[in-house]
Amino acid sequence: MLNNLIDLEEVSTDKLGAIIELACKIKANPEDYKECCRGKILATLFYEPSTRTQMSFQTAMMRLGGNTIGFDNPMNSSVAKGENLKDTIKIISGYADIIAMRHPAEGAAKAASLFSDVPIINAGDGGHLHPTQTLTDVVTLYNEIGRLDHLKIGLCGDLKNGRTVHSLIKTMSHFEGNEFILVSTRDLKVPGYIKSILKASGCRYTEHDNLSDAMPTLDVLYMTRIQRERFSSEEEYLKQSGVYVLDTKKLSLGKQSLKILHPLPRVDEISSDVDNDPRAVYFKQAVYGMYARMALIYLMLNAPAEKKQVKLPADNRVNRCDNPNCITNRESYLPRAFKNSGDMLTCMYCDNRMLI
Amino acid sequence: MLNNLIDLEEVSTDKLGAIIELACKIKANPEDYKECCRGKILATLFYEPSTRTQMSFQTAMMRLGGNTIGFDNPMNSSVAKGENLKDTIKIISGYADIIAMRHPAEGAAKAASLFSDVPIINAGDGGHLHPTQTLTDVVTLYNEIGRLDHLKIGLCGDLKNGRTVHSLIKTMSHFEGNEFILVSTRDLKVPGYIKSILKASGCRYTEHDNLSDAMPTLDVLYMTRIQRERFSSEEEYLKQSGVYVLDTKKLSLGKQSLKILHPLPRVDEISSDVDNDPRAVYFKQAVYGMYARMALIYLMLNAPAEKKQVKLPADNRVNRCDNPNCITNRESYLPRAFKNSGDMLTCMYCDNRMLI
Amino acid sequence: MLNNLIDLEEVSTDKLGAIIELACKIKANPEDYKECCRGKILATLFYEPSTRTQMSFQTAMMRLGGNTIGFDNPMNSSVAKGENLKDTIKIISGYADIIAMRHPAEGAAKAASLFSDVPIINAGDGGHLHPTQTLTDVVTLYNEIGRLDHLKIGLCGDLKNGRTVHSLIKTMSHFEGNEFILVSTRDLKVPGYIKSILKASGCRYTEHDNLSDAMPTLDVLYMTRIQRERFSSEEEYLKQSGVYVLDTKKLSLGKQSLKILHPLPRVDEISSDVDNDPRAVYFKQAVYGMYARMALIYLMLNAPAEKKQVKLPADNRVNRCDNPNCITNRESYLPRAFKNSGDMLTCMYCDNRMLI
Repeated sequence: MLNNLIDLEEVSTDKLGAIIELACKIKANPEDYKECCRGKILATLFYEPSTRTQMSFQTAMMRLGGNTIGFDNPMNSSVAKGENLKDTIKIISGYADIIAMRHPAEGAAKAASLFSDVPIINAGDGGHLHPTQTLTDVVTLYNEIGRLDHLKIGLCGDLKNGRTVHSLIKTMSHFEGNEFILVSTRDLKVPGYIKSILKASGCRYTEHDNLSDAMPTLDVLYMTRIQRERFSSEEEYLKQSGVYVLDTKKLSLGKQSLKILHPLPRVDEISSDVDNDPRAVYFKQAVYGMYARMALIYLMLNAPAEKKQVKLPADNRVNRCDNPNCITNRESYLPRAFKNSGDMLTCMYCDNRMLI
Repeated sequence: MLNNLIDLEEVSTDKLGAIIELACKIKANPEDYKECCRGKILATLFYEPSTRTQMSFQTAMMRLGGNTIGFDNPMNSSVAKGENLKDTIKIISGYADIIAMRHPAEGAAKAASLFSDVPIINAGDGGHLHPTQTLTDVVTLYNEIGRLDHLKIGLCGDLKNGRTVHSLIKTMSHFEGNEFILVSTRDLKVPGYIKSILKASGCRYTEHDNLSDAMPTLDVLYMTRIQRERFSSEEEYLKQSGVYVLDTKKLSLGKQSLKILHPLPRVDEISSDVDNDPRAVYFKQAVYGMYARMALIYLMLNAPAEKKQVKLPADNRVNRCDNPNCITNRESYLPRAFKNSGDMLTCMYCDNRMLI
Repeated sequence: MLNNLIDLEEVSTDKLGAIIELACKIKANPEDYKECCRGKILATLFYEPSTRTQMSFQTAMMRLGGNTIGFDNPMNSSVAKGENLKDTIKIISGYADIIAMRHPAEGAAKAASLFSDVPIINAGDGGHLHPTQTLTDVVTLYNEIGRLDHLKIGLCGDLKNGRTVHSLIKTMSHFEGNEFILVSTRDLKVPGYIKSILKASGCRYTEHDNLSDAMPTLDVLYMTRIQRERFSSEEEYLKQSGVYVLDTKKLSLGKQSLKILHPLPRVDEISSDVDNDPRAVYFKQAVYGMYARMALIYLMLNAPAEKKQVKLPADNRVNRCDNPNCITNRESYLPRAFKNSGDMLTCMYCDNRMLI
């Protein structure tokens, strides 16, 4: 069904539905799945540490009866001796049956998929993509609400830099009747290309700078970290930060059926006393994430798609991606590849767009 | 039987006996237990590294057929991103079936137990408690000697700062007829509150400053690390340190039935040639520790006590614990709680006692 | 069959043949072996990090149905608290059924074998030995070529310092009719004692300074890292380094049946475009390494040799090994031991030879 999960946008709505459905089945009957990956090995290659995500993958594999190898610290790995990504992937894909990798460079998972003999799951590539977080979010919504359409979805905090926010918006825009309420400071609004996607999808959206105002109509509130350094000045931070902290007072404005999500870890954008409110589902969300990853691993190992050779299109009008954090600018052997649309080229690894 | 193991003093002598008995049964018939935690996951959350203890827990879980996740280095974990203990515990208790945690702050395991959905084992909280070490010690004594009462127990080294020493004294004082021979420098004597416990229990004890003098009558000799910096001066250290090193000469003064224990790692307080003496059981002690942990994990997963809501008593005459290393002074959302006895308040997390 | 694997030279050709044969059987029928170490634990004690090798051992154990514990960073382990090798090994051999260890000091695995209650596999001891790499190499050759004799074996790069090169030469010199083509700079030639071994074995060898010249006759080309700092000057490096880089142009001079091996990681001594040539087997070599380690672990756990007390010969004409990196110069409790041959003494730990 899936050979790799690099970008959730490459997964059809049908396939996404199948993953969600399986996650629900596993949650309902974990015993039925506890031996189904016996003898299989998941490698978790974390070129930058993320204990939470790594443990979620490890737990998912273990609850399917499988085992795990991996690293969480590049300084302890062969990488520190200067080994390139290709060689590491070539070798690990000889050891393991499936690989989940996190890497600081954008496009790294895509690059790995060119060389791997086993499925690659993108567990985060720099600020670019983190598809299993979005999978976690939609499994949570489906389980907690019962549908993925006709929802009023509030997103609050740093909407400019948050890859999970962008990915969730893109995914939810594929379902009918969803409306987005975007709450942020002026400096941290969603980027233009996300608004273009929303317009193209026909989804309604509104922008707000005050959480309390937006609160009463929401079915879903997706909170994100807001970082002090994102504000233009310390005074600006102090003036505004409280506006974006969810506390019991603001929560009292919300519907009884509201669901509050957060990708975690939080800093202080949700106050601790909100945790006891039944509408707070961010801790359950982490458990849904485990089931989502179980479903994903199960399907990739047991129902693989027909393997096709990844073919990268060449475009010789440019010879390098101008995103300094693109994996192609770190690993020189990688074939450059761009997708052409009008007068724009999009890097096939990191999705960076360049004028020709 | 047990929901959490935070402090061995909270475990009744009957329950302690049941754990010891099970440890003996597992040691005798490991095959009978090798699949009994199949499909279960132990999380070992080590906020400060302790490879030995962590590997003992991991091995214990694996020898029951279970699996493990965890971390050993807070710098690689979400903790480094500022996540509080509550959130980490909330999430990990959604992944794992049981948690063993070590933390530098006193009372941290207690705090974790307030939020965890699964059993918590305290694998060391700062200088406060380390109950599975004491469990290891008593399983060793019971196996090697056949009883836990009417023993002459020598303890030698740093008796002032050693949490394992205090915990062993408290536990062994519950058994009839035990006598304690306390060997240390004047500066490293057991604290007054331990002597009060001994007096209250009716156990006899004597204090000595010379190991050789104490040696001939002992059934048990529990050695501990003595640290150079604990002496008042370098000359004092050089003058006295040899007095507390167990070598074959001093050992020759001991009974043939003597058993020598040490919580390990040792530095040089037991000389290497003592290792070959059959009375040296400190390496076997580590193996008993594995069986003790197997018994504990087995019982907590298979014979849980009725879950009751932990209720912390409030006392509003003080609003914070004055132990700077208490977990409540690191994690501000924790409810403060004190136990009142006369004109003293005892912190329910770290057992720090304060005058009202 | 084997109690420990410290030095491949201590393994008879018959036993080596049995390991290779089993590795082939496991590769052909992995399903038959996937539960055969169920319930067993491998400890991977890596006193210096080597993610690749450690993951190879972990994968091998898991694919036999077993489990693993271990560490990869001495700074996180009890070692950092000053625990000596003996105590660590004593304790870990109480937890695990078999130990694979890497250590920066030469002779460390030998030293560990004196104290361990379970089999020790040397996973690298400083610059001294790395027997499972050589086992990997011969399993690769046997599988890819079908025989281990009558081969023209080229070795290229740093032939002076490479422990894998020396070990492979020694092992292959036991098989009939092998011929060695040694390609290196003058400064990086194989040491005299290796040439003595070759002469004694009756194997022919020739030395070359140019890879292209040697290429056409080779059945096997074993490439190794060449390090910039090994050249006498930067100009020398720039002048010569290209001579030792295998690229498609040089490869075109090789036979169609040539097999190219490399212990990995590589830096730039094999250009990336060689990877697609079917003669490049260095990535497959890593997979053979996993099967080699599976065979080794299986045999050590299931067909142990009769356990005999290791007896170290004493020679009181010298009282310490003069190799500063010998484990005996780091761990003072170790009994010194030397083998006497004529006017030379050989350290039984690190094989350092001293004139009496």
